Amino acid sequence: MAPLTLEQLQHYDQQDLLAHKRAEFTLPEQSIYFDGNSLGAMPSCVLQRTQDVLARQWSQDLIQSWNSNQWIDLPLKVGEQIGRLIGAGSGQVICCDSTSVNLFKVLSCALLMQPERSVVLTQQGNFPTDLYMVQGLSTLVGEKRCQLLEVPEHELVQALNSDVAVLMLTQVDFRSGRLLDIQRLTQSAHDQGVLVILDLAHSAGALPVELDAWQVDFAVGCGYKYLNGGPGAPAFLYAAKRHHAQINQPLSGWMGHKAPFSFSPQYQKSDGIEQFLTGTPAVISMSVLDAALGVFSDVSMQQIREKSLGLTSCFHQLVQQQAALAELTLITPLKPEQRGSQLAYQHPQAYALCQALIKRGVIADFRAPDILRLGFTPLYLRYVDLWHAVEILTDIVASQEYLKPEYAIKHKVT
Amino acid sequence: MAPLTLEQLQHYDQQDLLAHKRAEFTLPEQSIYFDGNSLGAMPSCVLQRTQDVLARQWSQDLIQSWNSNQWIDLPLKVGEQIGRLIGAGSGQVICCDSTSVNLFKVLSCALLMQPERSVVLTQQGNFPTDLYMVQGLSTLVGEKRCQLLEVPEHELVQALNSDVAVLMLTQVDFRSGRLLDIQRLTQSAHDQGVLVILDLAHSAGALPVELDAWQVDFAVGCGYKYLNGGPGAPAFLYAAKRHHAQINQPLSGWMGHKAPFSFSPQYQKSDGIEQFLTGTPAVISMSVLDAALGVFSDVSMQQIREKSLGLTSCFHQLVQQQAALAELTLITPLKPEQRGSQLAYQHPQAYALCQALIKRGVIADFRAPDILRLGFTPLYLRYVDLWHAVEILTDIVASQEYLKPEYAIKHKVT
Repeated sequence: MAPLTLEQLQHYDQQDLLAHKRAEFTLPEQSIYFDGNSLGAMPSCVLQRTQDVLARQWSQDLIQSWNSNQWIDLPLKVGEQIGRLIGAGSGQVICCDSTSVNLFKVLSCALLMQPERSVVLTQQGNFPTDLYMVQGLSTLVGEKRCQLLEVPEHELVQALNSDVAVLMLTQVDFRSGRLLDIQRLTQSAHDQGVLVILDLAHSAGALPVELDAWQVDFAVGCGYKYLNGGPGAPAFLYAAKRHHAQINQPLSGWMGHKAPFSFSPQYQKSDGIEQFLTGTPAVISMSVLDAALGVFSDVSMQQIREKSLGLTSCFHQLVQQQAALAELTLITPLKPEQRGSQLAYQHPQAYALCQALIKRGVIADFRAPDILRLGFTPLYLRYVDLWHAVEILTDIVASQEYLKPEYAIKHKVT
Repeated sequence: MAPLTLEQLQHYDQQDLLAHKRAEFTLPEQSIYFDGNSLGAMPSCVLQRTQDVLARQWSQDLIQSWNSNQWIDLPLKVGEQIGRLIGAGSGQVICCDSTSVNLFKVLSCALLMQPERSVVLTQQGNFPTDLYMVQGLSTLVGEKRCQLLEVPEHELVQALNSDVAVLMLTQVDFRSGRLLDIQRLTQSAHDQGVLVILDLAHSAGALPVELDAWQVDFAVGCGYKYLNGGPGAPAFLYAAKRHHAQINQPLSGWMGHKAPFSFSPQYQKSDGIEQFLTGTPAVISMSVLDAALGVFSDVSMQQIREKSLGLTSCFHQLVQQQAALAELTLITPLKPEQRGSQLAYQHPQAYALCQALIKRGVIADFRAPDILRLGFTPLYLRYVDLWHAVEILTDIVASQEYLKPEYAIKHKVT
């Protein structure tokens, strides 16, 4: 393969059908941002929306905004927008709470639906909060009703048996960026009478997801990564319509009631996906997410996926062209059907390397114990950015600049 | 008693030690706002803060803001500020999630701490979401481990026995505005080995609360009423330090972990109040609340309480001066030690009356089945506002203006 050149990358940018989307984001001048998988960049439109929510809707219309500015409809409205990005037909996605809280809801539902089964099966190395939520639920209801079983990914199918209530998967592994074949795994689970819960934290907005077509039972995901909803944006929850009638989620707050403003003492769940609501919706942050989702209105997930694969391919090719970077070991699968929208490199000094990169304006992140993680967001990353980033990375590695003591200082958040 | 005059009210405003606080809020020109107990008015300082969070912290500093702009410390920082308003010493209050979700956490903890007891005792007519959360928990763990018992307020003490795990109280009743004697009730509960959970939705920021002194075990409350944190602001949770070591809250997400960024597969709770965190903090809305709490920095809860009692007294006196208003029946206790910061009037046409008032710029709310509810927020309500509001109310009632068909139309949110 001929070496990839800067000119070639410039050419890719010229041909990029998503190139115009970058102008819809406000990005720092001097940085190349590879962390949209931790915190998406800010769509510029959120400034005006927030101003309107604060200075008009809240301060002037006050309590009446629940009706007049449709605050009460936001969870469903935002849910519908997200639904379109993850292959969910209408009335199955709602925006609320955090990913973790939503996971607790759907885990509880799935276990209550399968009273003879108690195992929550997941892949080893799944995102900690997913594991912790199962552990917390287990503390509450007892090991006889909820126990966590973690197995390596290749053992998932054989571990599916009549003790397993739920197969809980994260579609894209947060460390390696490995992408699971959800359709196949869901089929295997259903063959054994097992319900499937999907964590879409690193999928929604990054690659095509087909929840309905794959017949996934429940899914949760986060608003602040590839959906660009801002720090700590509200999360979302999907529940397949076929389950709506028979489920009972335990975080049954007034917003999930069939008639919240009847103020009746007995809980009666909403018929639809609103039954997953709990407390009062976070209007300000949900409005930011609502506005941010507008950037997806004129693009398809297929276009995004194609550019994402292009970006990750090119980046790794550039890394391979640099002899100095041989000490970085790619742990992300190279096959397109096995990788999400990130690349993860192992390096014994990954933390220091990441800090040195950040100092030079290349924003990546570190995941313990030794992973340098780079997220690729097709809506605002350019092909030429890859060239400059790899140049800086090469310089830092070759010069051993990352060994400076300042880069060893551990911050609270990595 | 001599009739209250407009001049007298103007005089009260001149003497009001809190009069200057109104200038710190952005309020609509033509309205008199009696709904700060549903949605507090907007402190003007939140505009600049939000601009900074979006345009600098998010869009420019991006993921680094978790460290550089102390996003990671917000839940504790905001919790500390709220703690000062509710009599909680340092390290016992955290800002997170919604009131309902937080209630689920502390209910679960309290039941797990008392495995021989299963009853959650509460007053009849408690806020629905509080009842629903107990019902949801009961669905999950079974009636043998969690069952709700509602009794009239005057029967609470005699209902305390060795089956009761938790006495769950809302300090100020959302309908009547009745204020409970928490110190006495907590003492009675503790005498029977019962833990106390307090809902401070209508107390925090409205009147003095002394959680530590009263030896309350757990409390939750909301950020968007008297704390003026904006629509759907994050809520808060108090847990007395004496319980921190032995509690296990089931919504155990990564933010409650002792070392979230070690990404270890086993949950190990934080030692302190951070153990009640679940998912990623809602940075934007929590920053709004953080800024909004600044308006409390130079006032005492005692000053607020005095003005609150003055406002409610004067309002009801003005109502009593109007013969036309005799058809409104006050259901709020008149004794200062028995009322919060609201007045509730029963009227057969309360909904229509409320709509007619709103149309004329007097913003109150309706609570089913027949209550016109008026909240009094001492930081921005003036004594003269009461005069004008009662004049308008009198006119609407005397003219039967509220019988117009347009005021019968039910909105989604009341």
